[in-house]
Amino acid sequence: MSTPQDTTALDVPSRAPARMDTPAPGDPRLARLSLNQKTVDGWSLRTAVEACAAHGIPAIGVWREPLAVAGVDAAAAMIRDAGLRVSSLCRGGFFTAADGAERRSRHDDNLRALDEAAALGAPCLVLVPGGLPAGDRDLRGARARAAQAVADLVPHALEVGVRLAIEPMHPIFAADRGVVSTLAQALDIAEPLPTEAVGVVVDTFHVWWEPGIEDQIARAAGRIASYQVCEWITPLPPDALLSRGMMGDGHIDFAHLSRCVAAAGYRGDVEVEIFNAEVWEADGHAVLDTLARRYVELVEPHV
Amino acid sequence: MSTPQDTTALDVPSRAPARMDTPAPGDPRLARLSLNQKTVDGWSLRTAVEACAAHGIPAIGVWREPLAVAGVDAAAAMIRDAGLRVSSLCRGGFFTAADGAERRSRHDDNLRALDEAAALGAPCLVLVPGGLPAGDRDLRGARARAAQAVADLVPHALEVGVRLAIEPMHPIFAADRGVVSTLAQALDIAEPLPTEAVGVVVDTFHVWWEPGIEDQIARAAGRIASYQVCEWITPLPPDALLSRGMMGDGHIDFAHLSRCVAAAGYRGDVEVEIFNAEVWEADGHAVLDTLARRYVELVEPHV
Repeated sequence: MSTPQDTTALDVPSRAPARMDTPAPGDPRLARLSLNQKTVDGWSLRTAVEACAAHGIPAIGVWREPLAVAGVDAAAAMIRDAGLRVSSLCRGGFFTAADGAERRSRHDDNLRALDEAAALGAPCLVLVPGGLPAGDRDLRGARARAAQAVADLVPHALEVGVRLAIEPMHPIFAADRGVVSTLAQALDIAEPLPTEAVGVVVDTFHVWWEPGIEDQIARAAGRIASYQVCEWITPLPPDALLSRGMMGDGHIDFAHLSRCVAAAGYRGDVEVEIFNAEVWEADGHAVLDTLARRYVELVEPHV
Repeated sequence: MSTPQDTTALDVPSRAPARMDTPAPGDPRLARLSLNQKTVDGWSLRTAVEACAAHGIPAIGVWREPLAVAGVDAAAAMIRDAGLRVSSLCRGGFFTAADGAERRSRHDDNLRALDEAAALGAPCLVLVPGGLPAGDRDLRGARARAAQAVADLVPHALEVGVRLAIEPMHPIFAADRGVVSTLAQALDIAEPLPTEAVGVVVDTFHVWWEPGIEDQIARAAGRIASYQVCEWITPLPPDALLSRGMMGDGHIDFAHLSRCVAAAGYRGDVEVEIFNAEVWEADGHAVLDTLARRYVELVEPHV
């Protein structure tokens, strides 16, 4: 394993010169930074955990697939032994199947995901709502099923002490991934349910464009379970799923949105979650150095 | 020019067998169908006009660039002589420049666009709001400039009798093309302004995902200046700008949205506007045959 000092002072994937020194491990500005594991998609959970420790990133957002490879108990011990905390478990959800048996199977899997989150000490389980079933054009129906499925998970969430975090997703994904399209809509689903059981994710990529987002973030006070940052870049990369950018390379006003999130009282970790082919191709340590710099420059002063 | 009878009975671009006979010219089900010129991007205005007449499509949505090539007066005469009407002129707008001189230049160009629309007898000028200026991350500022620019055009719109039609655009375009992202937001801009001067475009591609779209379309009663149909398809084609599909090939419930538009009292033309590389590569007459069939199958019974 290389160390942070080996990395170049070029940002990735832009190859622009770094605009500041890389914050060293222990820098207090890193105290709330979390690496969402998907940002270094090629790494095992162990490699990601070791890299976070080496780079001074104190938290990690864990994905279930690599977690299954590592084993939940072994992973929990490994993360604890590295001195890290888990900021979220990604991901539950996929609530929208038209078939009742499939929905029950998803419910059971979401119960297991809540148990895994509890075992990791994760405060929340991120819920990706799911898209329209094949051939189904009833968006309102799919949205109603998603809302009901969240409600059905509340008792177990309360029992294990893990919060359900509804993730509104950019409308680019409304058909095939997430039928909850705005923070307003996520809050409409969350508000009738207990605050301690159901929150929302504010992910800058997904909600930066939402008219009135300031009002909705304020409305989310007490409900923000996770704050995730990544960038909207243009031209949009060809694969819509991998269209997220490094903070500072695109169009989002991170200072503004971060101030809104802070004003709503959020004091939790800030996850950097980037799905992007160029980021995934880059050296993972250079990715961590870049995101630490960009976070400290663009997000941390405001959050 | 080939004639409609030369076209195959395969739909384009899906190459699936046609699901119904192509409606013949004079079929009353075609009475409100309009071809937006961009759907046959390779054709001149003259070719598009002649093809509409040959296929029995009684209206056309005209774009300014080919209109400039044809000449406004010559185009107006040609369209009139072919027995067609103009359903809209596309497009004005691009309101969001940070530079005042550039905004004044755009204002003047929009005045000319209104004059052109009047010369063509078009009931409305479609307004594409414009995106964020390069390096500018102040989305609220850009949105405020767009709203003000619409208001500034009202006197001339009233004078020439052409309605300004604000087009909310899918959030995929919020950064680089259209900062008005929802029908709700478009109506917020339109409502303080005179109904006869300012309306909105309901384009299925742009608004199908909007939570509460039914309520917003109802709210738009009297304000719907144009109803445009095209499809949201997955996987999304690599070029986001060309990601629109043929009705029936994707995820949109055209019956539902068309019923909402009809219930709001809209009785105008229904434009088919598809930006898609495969559609543009196909034979234009096959495109017209397919869209006429799909319109009669999926839209016309409900609108």
